[in-house]
Amino acid sequence: MDIAEFVKLSFGKWRSQRSAHNLAFSHFEQVISTIDIVPLSSEDPAVIALCESYKIEPKLAIHPFRMSWEGESDWEEGEIIKGTTILVPISDPNDPKKGQLLRDQGYAETIPSVGNYHFNEEGCFILITPYDRAMAEERIWFGTPNLRFRVSLIKTSAGTGVVTASFASEIRCLDKE
Amino acid sequence: MDIAEFVKLSFGKWRSQRSAHNLAFSHFEQVISTIDIVPLSSEDPAVIALCESYKIEPKLAIHPFRMSWEGESDWEEGEIIKGTTILVPISDPNDPKKGQLLRDQGYAETIPSVGNYHFNEEGCFILITPYDRAMAEERIWFGTPNLRFRVSLIKTSAGTGVVTASFASEIRCLDKE
Repeated sequence: MDIAEFVKLSFGKWRSQRSAHNLAFSHFEQVISTIDIVPLSSEDPAVIALCESYKIEPKLAIHPFRMSWEGESDWEEGEIIKGTTILVPISDPNDPKKGQLLRDQGYAETIPSVGNYHFNEEGCFILITPYDRAMAEERIWFGTPNLRFRVSLIKTSAGTGVVTASFASEIRCLDKE
Repeated sequence: MDIAEFVKLSFGKWRSQRSAHNLAFSHFEQVISTIDIVPLSSEDPAVIALCESYKIEPKLAIHPFRMSWEGESDWEEGEIIKGTTILVPISDPNDPKKGQLLRDQGYAETIPSVGNYHFNEEGCFILITPYDRAMAEERIWFGTPNLRFRVSLIKTSAGTGVVTASFASEIRCLDKE
């Protein structure tokens, strides 16, 4: 598994079922959402701008994409959570199993972020993103080509304590729209 | 990470927060439980009987243990779910990173089971257990020595479809009893 194959497998519409565990208080949160992952051109002005903001050559971008989500949490009944972000993978020229992921809106904090990813021997994508006051560790892997799992940990910025752990099961929507 | 180190790290009392996703119906289940993992002697009659039922030399057992749990699910308010099982790891004599796990009561079906485990490069314990009508795939890893995560998948017996995916965050109880 490399980043090109991983991103291509991720393109499409997904129905996501996510559970978050607040570890200090044993609280649960349940989120049902729809996630759209669509390819972007390397020449897309937003992709170029994001690369330039990190002083990275836009031509090093591999399968940049847009991820949009819309869903509902049991913590805020009736309220729709939605958002969109651009993600740009930059593969390490010396190691196809690792690289950087630029993001115009972060997961733990809604500011641009850059994370380091690698693939383990099983093809699991592992992304570590440092933020100002937190650190996110995400693992995403495919159970089948139409089933994706994601474990996300929000850690203290030193990376020692885990504040929130969440798990998402994402099923590809195969129905035509 | 090998089985001896993994089991020793697991000994103790854990507070578990578990979410299960029924993938076909997008149902969530939430379970809060306490899990006790206590060492057993290799000479314990129950350990010997379990080994003998699989025609395995009891002296090959590495850190056999008893796991007991008691908890509550949001699917059955007020009802206590409890159980106990004996687990006996048998390390592969040729490869310390893999082996078998004997269990006197299974996870997907409440009959004795034997699963195959291995550790990946990151020290994650991966257990595949075939049952008559299902297959269970469990991954357990430590976030810190006092925090364990577990992803369990129940698959169809052919191993192709995933029926249920669950995620548990387990925190070690450090308070004295």
